[in-house]
Amino acid sequence: MTERVVLAYSGGLDTSVAIGWIADQTGAEVIACAVDVGQGGEDLETIRKRALACGAVEAVVVDAKDEFAEDYCMPALAANALYMDRYPLVSALSRPLIVKHLVATAKEHGASVVAHGCTGKGNDQVRFEVGVGALAPDLKVLAPVRDFAWTREKAIAYAEEHGLPIDVTKKSPFSIDQNVWGRAIETGFLEDLWNAPTEEIYSYTQDPSVPREPDEVIVTFERGRPVKIDGHPVTPLQAIQQLNRRAGAQGVGRLDMVEDRLVGIKSREVYEAPGAIALITAHQELENVTVERDLARFKRQVEQRWAELVYDGLWYSPLKRALDSFITTSQEHVTGDIRMVLHGGRAVVTGRRSESSLYDFNLATYDEGDAFDQSLARGFVELWGLPSKIAAKRDLRA
Amino acid sequence: MTERVVLAYSGGLDTSVAIGWIADQTGAEVIACAVDVGQGGEDLETIRKRALACGAVEAVVVDAKDEFAEDYCMPALAANALYMDRYPLVSALSRPLIVKHLVATAKEHGASVVAHGCTGKGNDQVRFEVGVGALAPDLKVLAPVRDFAWTREKAIAYAEEHGLPIDVTKKSPFSIDQNVWGRAIETGFLEDLWNAPTEEIYSYTQDPSVPREPDEVIVTFERGRPVKIDGHPVTPLQAIQQLNRRAGAQGVGRLDMVEDRLVGIKSREVYEAPGAIALITAHQELENVTVERDLARFKRQVEQRWAELVYDGLWYSPLKRALDSFITTSQEHVTGDIRMVLHGGRAVVTGRRSESSLYDFNLATYDEGDAFDQSLARGFVELWGLPSKIAAKRDLRA
Amino acid sequence: MTERVVLAYSGGLDTSVAIGWIADQTGAEVIACAVDVGQGGEDLETIRKRALACGAVEAVVVDAKDEFAEDYCMPALAANALYMDRYPLVSALSRPLIVKHLVATAKEHGASVVAHGCTGKGNDQVRFEVGVGALAPDLKVLAPVRDFAWTREKAIAYAEEHGLPIDVTKKSPFSIDQNVWGRAIETGFLEDLWNAPTEEIYSYTQDPSVPREPDEVIVTFERGRPVKIDGHPVTPLQAIQQLNRRAGAQGVGRLDMVEDRLVGIKSREVYEAPGAIALITAHQELENVTVERDLARFKRQVEQRWAELVYDGLWYSPLKRALDSFITTSQEHVTGDIRMVLHGGRAVVTGRRSESSLYDFNLATYDEGDAFDQSLARGFVELWGLPSKIAAKRDLRA
Amino acid sequence: MTERVVLAYSGGLDTSVAIGWIADQTGAEVIACAVDVGQGGEDLETIRKRALACGAVEAVVVDAKDEFAEDYCMPALAANALYMDRYPLVSALSRPLIVKHLVATAKEHGASVVAHGCTGKGNDQVRFEVGVGALAPDLKVLAPVRDFAWTREKAIAYAEEHGLPIDVTKKSPFSIDQNVWGRAIETGFLEDLWNAPTEEIYSYTQDPSVPREPDEVIVTFERGRPVKIDGHPVTPLQAIQQLNRRAGAQGVGRLDMVEDRLVGIKSREVYEAPGAIALITAHQELENVTVERDLARFKRQVEQRWAELVYDGLWYSPLKRALDSFITTSQEHVTGDIRMVLHGGRAVVTGRRSESSLYDFNLATYDEGDAFDQSLARGFVELWGLPSKIAAKRDLRA
Repeated sequence: MTERVVLAYSGGLDTSVAIGWIADQTGAEVIACAVDVGQGGEDLETIRKRALACGAVEAVVVDAKDEFAEDYCMPALAANALYMDRYPLVSALSRPLIVKHLVATAKEHGASVVAHGCTGKGNDQVRFEVGVGALAPDLKVLAPVRDFAWTREKAIAYAEEHGLPIDVTKKSPFSIDQNVWGRAIETGFLEDLWNAPTEEIYSYTQDPSVPREPDEVIVTFERGRPVKIDGHPVTPLQAIQQLNRRAGAQGVGRLDMVEDRLVGIKSREVYEAPGAIALITAHQELENVTVERDLARFKRQVEQRWAELVYDGLWYSPLKRALDSFITTSQEHVTGDIRMVLHGGRAVVTGRRSESSLYDFNLATYDEGDAFDQSLARGFVELWGLPSKIAAKRDLRA
Repeated sequence: MTERVVLAYSGGLDTSVAIGWIADQTGAEVIACAVDVGQGGEDLETIRKRALACGAVEAVVVDAKDEFAEDYCMPALAANALYMDRYPLVSALSRPLIVKHLVATAKEHGASVVAHGCTGKGNDQVRFEVGVGALAPDLKVLAPVRDFAWTREKAIAYAEEHGLPIDVTKKSPFSIDQNVWGRAIETGFLEDLWNAPTEEIYSYTQDPSVPREPDEVIVTFERGRPVKIDGHPVTPLQAIQQLNRRAGAQGVGRLDMVEDRLVGIKSREVYEAPGAIALITAHQELENVTVERDLARFKRQVEQRWAELVYDGLWYSPLKRALDSFITTSQEHVTGDIRMVLHGGRAVVTGRRSESSLYDFNLATYDEGDAFDQSLARGFVELWGLPSKIAAKRDLRA
Repeated sequence: MTERVVLAYSGGLDTSVAIGWIADQTGAEVIACAVDVGQGGEDLETIRKRALACGAVEAVVVDAKDEFAEDYCMPALAANALYMDRYPLVSALSRPLIVKHLVATAKEHGASVVAHGCTGKGNDQVRFEVGVGALAPDLKVLAPVRDFAWTREKAIAYAEEHGLPIDVTKKSPFSIDQNVWGRAIETGFLEDLWNAPTEEIYSYTQDPSVPREPDEVIVTFERGRPVKIDGHPVTPLQAIQQLNRRAGAQGVGRLDMVEDRLVGIKSREVYEAPGAIALITAHQELENVTVERDLARFKRQVEQRWAELVYDGLWYSPLKRALDSFITTSQEHVTGDIRMVLHGGRAVVTGRRSESSLYDFNLATYDEGDAFDQSLARGFVELWGLPSKIAAKRDLRA
Repeated sequence: MTERVVLAYSGGLDTSVAIGWIADQTGAEVIACAVDVGQGGEDLETIRKRALACGAVEAVVVDAKDEFAEDYCMPALAANALYMDRYPLVSALSRPLIVKHLVATAKEHGASVVAHGCTGKGNDQVRFEVGVGALAPDLKVLAPVRDFAWTREKAIAYAEEHGLPIDVTKKSPFSIDQNVWGRAIETGFLEDLWNAPTEEIYSYTQDPSVPREPDEVIVTFERGRPVKIDGHPVTPLQAIQQLNRRAGAQGVGRLDMVEDRLVGIKSREVYEAPGAIALITAHQELENVTVERDLARFKRQVEQRWAELVYDGLWYSPLKRALDSFITTSQEHVTGDIRMVLHGGRAVVTGRRSESSLYDFNLATYDEGDAFDQSLARGFVELWGLPSKIAAKRDLRA
């Protein structure tokens, strides 16, 4: 039986060319698989037809936007996942979902190989291949761009030679990846760390320095997930999309940073993630109100490890599952309303209220009604500082 | 010999009244000690005279602004110290310095007791008393406000009765603490978590939503410390002060959060720390460029613990010293320039350059000159994912 | 209605006297509650009758040995819980269970106060009171030994004066606490750190230096819990008891250490916990075989925090619940057999076998059948070391 | 000029053959470099002559035993370095030292390549190559066994064909690596996890189950380093060697475990490290006496990371340097005596005394002289448990 290869297909030049090229080189039948995670652009049907026109024996297209929001963005929100305290893991979140559909397609269509178009110096190759290894350890992986040193020039020549229905003239000076959780821009003049980003590289966000009216929004969470915006019920996808629009219109969520890639190099990355940043900002403050101190302190370590793991391609790892159990338990009481003002590039929390609040007005107030027994403090302070005091007696003697 | 008490003196109503009150209650001589950490307000000489007029046998005033910037703010900057990822430890940093001068004053003037005016439900009592215990374990501590349940009403009555030279009519609805690293505002209507802060509570920062021209600044760091601003040499104190002015004028550094106090309750706090936030923002990005990945990842845990320790009053603890050793070593190469735009409440890094950079253009670029050997990636990815893959074989079987 | 106090009752002198004393001092009715966690000694009925004879209006006795093993010791085993890497949390585990029964008794009998006999410098007062606060925040706590400075002398006098049916002559020179998970011995000549423990202080373990025949045992685990010993099904309680006997007979599980108490002091503690140490030893090695590397590495941090939390009296805390979720997930595949030799004070693992093993003979062997593709290593090593190499180029230049 | 290769030379079959083979294959001149880290066996002069006889143009031999003990074993002791809580990093510690001498030899003799004989599935290839990359990023690395798929059979054939002065008949069924810090045994029948080790695989330790007289020893530490044994001054090397002898004679320090290799597989390893285990046991307990609680708790995390880093080949990494700074500071007061009994495979601490002790008899004792103010406890306990209590009120309501 002819071997079959499932190719992660975007509809763009590189992966369109890859269909025929893989077939030529390996004699295999190629099945294109395109997954919509909210990257926008062409509709799935157009992409499906192009894949077939380029020689795919099958073309599978999946609208996975809700699944992505539910099963990938919501856990990231619960983890306040910010790699290096900044990057909300835009691409890193979509890869495991795409892998899941590639593997399902391979099983359904009897393929033994999965192919992707990543280069050999980025993080995405790791996320694809480690993901495939974890979901279907018996599938082989083909990475033609990396392992056969493809170039854009070769791809254009191939496309023209074979008359592929793909526009070879459009070429962004940047490498861009986007989905509903955000948008990543790299390469081009950004490779010089002293160059500031220019306004035209952004697409999800407006210029935050342009004066405009602020936008006030109330996000309601249940167990760490947004369930209402301004009182209207929303799905996770709707919550992200609405906040992408509203926070994006105020220039919220632009990031510009030097980042540590898993393959050992530093790279310059620019992101825009208005919905993600607005939601994480709100979620963190609701946790401040509803999560007990020791749990909150330890959760920061869990959050950091979670973000590193996912960045490093280990979504489908045993540690990730155990961290998720911790996080799920931590979200039990993260329920309530956060009011934010979106304006001038900032998402600023201005109010919080929650039935699950651990803020106790009567213990906190310095006003009438103060219920805090200050006489307890002396003993507390004395024993809290006792180890330091005993050490000081020793150290001052020395 | 008459017992002597060193009182942490601010010049305000409560501690002015405390001078006489302590003398009355204990028969001790009171020595007032006022430390300038950049809190502004009256000059030290005025404060000194008032202490004497209120009955102090000695009044010691110390301009500790440079010491505070050098020895307390700079380590906090190296640690990117943000308690709960937000609060730059404004009050928590000044307390150990004030304690240091109280203890020195006690030694110089033969006092056996140190007194402070903190209440029993805040963090500062802990910082004062644990600090005293660590620097001078034999000194006793007196906390009249906490242990004798003082009230403002009693203080006013006492001041009027004794004709103390202090204005008893001024009363902020808020509790405020400020120094060169920032300003803290609490109580009043802020005790209702749903109330937004109003513009008049701020003093270090302008309204970020007012349109104005952006301000671009270049901060030069050496081993993690700011040494130049726009090319002009600065001391740590000058760096903070200049950025307080420039970042404050753009509304940078306002924070509004619910915070976990050491005494076990949650409280609402508003801060403004324009210089601190601008410096930390710049410093973090310079670290992204100059600090190796594994070191950067572990340093985040060290930073969190450092901030918790200092917040929790353990500045003079053995763990703090060991964490400082780690951090000092980590700053060895944190040298270079960061360009930022201050505008609309945001401090945005737009450029970085460093002789110590670990960013290697030739390894990072996707352009000509790419020196990264992509053939290495396949083996890396395979072994990186091997534990997940082996686990997957087991788990899928189950 | 007369107030009612539930007293944690042991049957010994101090708590027998406390019954009448509390009644005298407070006018309340005292309900004695004794919980059997495997401490041995008198039977529950004898204890119950003594409580009534001493003046209790009710005496509740609970055989909680199985509950203790199931719900307290098994989670500790899953966590490999060793405070300071040594102490298996003997007393720290039983306190929350006792608290649970005190609270239940208080609810059932309409009591508004819980009383315990702990001193003010140990850990147990914290475990009792924090536990009560977490299970029944409205109950008050009475700690007569601590808050009214009781002494043994006063207790004896009271007992003799009131003719209480309790032997006042027996007096161990040590303070001892024991349950099925182990036994703690402190005070007496052990307070001198240079004194070695003597043989007569031990009760669960034989002298390990006496020559005797080794004992080989096979423990079978399912999801981290012992389910069979030498092929015979056991409950958790039976597993601990059988290993207490067999490992104890070989002198396994003696510990002698200086320990950091929560109240800020160091103390000398001697423990014997033959079953606990044997089980933890076996469990750790089974985890080595069945738990993936990254999960195992992070779990060590979780284990340390878990042990600290439980030691520090925070069994019923939100963080503890979240850590338990992590641990439960981590145990999913900790299933298999561990063969150990118990001998001469050592529990030595000599064999492991598991259907869930992640050890892959074909990948590990250097013999025929080696399936490891060594050609992958070069790329892995190169990229693994790349951050160090790039840093070295910078550092060597400097 | 002819290229020169520095080969890590052991004197054994594989590396003796490698001399000629590398010369043949690459046309380079081979310089053999043998480093004595206490592995025993032939003397350095014999090894040096064999290298020359096998065709090396130079043969450099280095007695690095003291350097190894001072600069590699002592930091490991300060870190209580036990990978996976068990393995004292025997081989992992020697590799960076050997690399240091290889690199120095390469510089001295103008070599541009370093060669080692490691396979592609172990950890040592990583330690060699990452180490070389960190000390001399411009040197190339050659790994003939891994990259050219050498086998023992080919090596024997080559040796016989070329008449090399090396005995090809001796063949251990095990793979062994040893140095003064310990000895590692793997492969052979140990690859079956159910097989127990047999007595003949051990060399540093006697059978612990044979009855013999106990041996009592007093180790004196200064700042975490052993400086005297039974009152007699020792160098670090002497301390390790003497305890290897004395603890080894009592069967102390045998380990048998399944271990997570960096390359992603699990392997079975048996170790014996009598001196290392005895020293770490003593050092840990001296830390219990002299290190403050919070520092001790955080140091455990540092220790774990330190052991992982060194195991993973990152001795010369920026993070390692920063962790060392932390650890050095932590050892400031780790000074004093530990008395241990070595017997029956166990090193048991029986006494500790230190001028730097933080154990305060007067605070700890329950006897006369008790200086602990128990009245402080109530307030401490109440505020310590307040977050749990507030959370409980919320959770019980839900």
